[in-house]
Amino acid sequence: MTALVMGHMNPDTDSIISAIAVADLNNKRGISAKAGAQGEPTPETKFVLEKFGLTAPEVVTDVAGKKMYLVDYSDLAQAPKGIGEAEILGIVDHHKLGDVTTSNPLEIWTWPVGCSCTVIKSMYDFYGVEIPKNIAGGLLCAILSDTVMFKSPTCTEADKKAVEALAKIAGVSDVMALGMEMFKVKSAVEGASMKDLVFRDYKDFDMNGNKVGIGQLEVVDLSILDKVKDGLYEEITRVKGEGRHSVFLLLTDIMKEGSEMLIVSDDPAVVEKAFGKKPEGKSVWLDGVMSRKKQVVPNFEKAFK
Amino acid sequence: MTALVMGHMNPDTDSIISAIAVADLNNKRGISAKAGAQGEPTPETKFVLEKFGLTAPEVVTDVAGKKMYLVDYSDLAQAPKGIGEAEILGIVDHHKLGDVTTSNPLEIWTWPVGCSCTVIKSMYDFYGVEIPKNIAGGLLCAILSDTVMFKSPTCTEADKKAVEALAKIAGVSDVMALGMEMFKVKSAVEGASMKDLVFRDYKDFDMNGNKVGIGQLEVVDLSILDKVKDGLYEEITRVKGEGRHSVFLLLTDIMKEGSEMLIVSDDPAVVEKAFGKKPEGKSVWLDGVMSRKKQVVPNFEKAFK
Repeated sequence: MTALVMGHMNPDTDSIISAIAVADLNNKRGISAKAGAQGEPTPETKFVLEKFGLTAPEVVTDVAGKKMYLVDYSDLAQAPKGIGEAEILGIVDHHKLGDVTTSNPLEIWTWPVGCSCTVIKSMYDFYGVEIPKNIAGGLLCAILSDTVMFKSPTCTEADKKAVEALAKIAGVSDVMALGMEMFKVKSAVEGASMKDLVFRDYKDFDMNGNKVGIGQLEVVDLSILDKVKDGLYEEITRVKGEGRHSVFLLLTDIMKEGSEMLIVSDDPAVVEKAFGKKPEGKSVWLDGVMSRKKQVVPNFEKAFK
Repeated sequence: MTALVMGHMNPDTDSIISAIAVADLNNKRGISAKAGAQGEPTPETKFVLEKFGLTAPEVVTDVAGKKMYLVDYSDLAQAPKGIGEAEILGIVDHHKLGDVTTSNPLEIWTWPVGCSCTVIKSMYDFYGVEIPKNIAGGLLCAILSDTVMFKSPTCTEADKKAVEALAKIAGVSDVMALGMEMFKVKSAVEGASMKDLVFRDYKDFDMNGNKVGIGQLEVVDLSILDKVKDGLYEEITRVKGEGRHSVFLLLTDIMKEGSEMLIVSDDPAVVEKAFGKKPEGKSVWLDGVMSRKKQVVPNFEKAFK
């Protein structure tokens, strides 16, 4: 049976490109595999796919009975329907270890680096498989996206080295110019609904028994969001109303290197507990905070304990 | 802070040697590390340590506040006291993915191979670190032990290749003779208490909310155990009485390639459900069954569902 390689809910560029790359690598290793996705690509991901002539993976919403590789997550809350009836053959990730468990031994490649695609670059090298030029371009962009062009505190030397090597394979001469082009696409809010924007990069977490949603929008300049901020707040209020303890939306300014966090919570005091800063009204500015994974989730997990 | 590298409860040769090797590799990668163990080495492991001039890791029983690398397991039930207050930096394993979770991104190397030490051999290669001669000997023996000299269904080509390469580094000319020597040591029951024998290679599992203990004794000839079988049965009855749903003890004949399983259970019917064979009295012969991980645990997990 062909194994499905799929990233998390509300797939970002890392989730989509990782699925494409691990499917390619597995097929070349003799493990029949196919990329899937839990949703349509974001504008940023579409830009990357088009730039390098890659095809968006098929959207799959129920994986019961399938053989699976998970990429870019290991939390059940981010898994597709039917994951309990699927057989997980492997995981490639760069996040904390979540609550996925398996009945059988499996292959796991998880490293504390800025992007799953950095791990995948090394997997290709490890298995002695050549990286196709178009996939190298995709991997490169995913790393630039996840590390916010190396500015995120999640970025490691391994990410930078991977980008350097991938740029050569993909024939990209100016990596930073490509990154800015991509982030400008990502910053665009025209034509997107409030729901689209909130869920563009959104994850639910179980924090000490509380369902907590955290979304993130990264823009090259926060002023881009001035006109939509009220609408975003209304939308996260609606999302919280679906049975969540809190919903937080990070509006990250990648040039200023910080985030404004919009807050809807049953207990807004957790924000001060987590970050040592009192919210003003419905939001708080968190200087230097760019990474949900490394700077936001761990702080909230402690605050919820 | 120096990170502790430790295997599972009731450490076997793989757990002890993996801890020694990953600590060595980490130190050479610039990550300060020290091997630990949740208990004293078994007679088999002592033989291996002495054969190659390695030192048994210090026994550590509480890891609260420590930085940790877990080797050869990812189940909380097999973790030391205080694991909830430790920071897990990495996992090296070859089992199913257990219920360990983390708050931070970490390094995980898990492969579906016969022994954690096979993964570690590749980690040395990946990081370009030379394997010391004595550690190569230890890794080699651990793989022979876990794969029952390549006879276990868990054994893969990767395990055989690793042994071949390690034998060259360690200067071992006759791998199979070394394996038989080791398994004869393992088979010896003289001087060991019933408790020692039951816990020599014993693990607790959470199966659908039921605490289930499964131990295994591997011998070169089952007749070695004739005199102790009644004592072993009494001992697992006592262990079950500590609040377990079931305790199973596999008496594995590595030459006949099968196991007699001693059974104490609140619901002995799970055995027939799991293996399609009705126990005769207190035990059942399971032909071809040599691997707890691959042939016993998954069957029981299904039967308990």
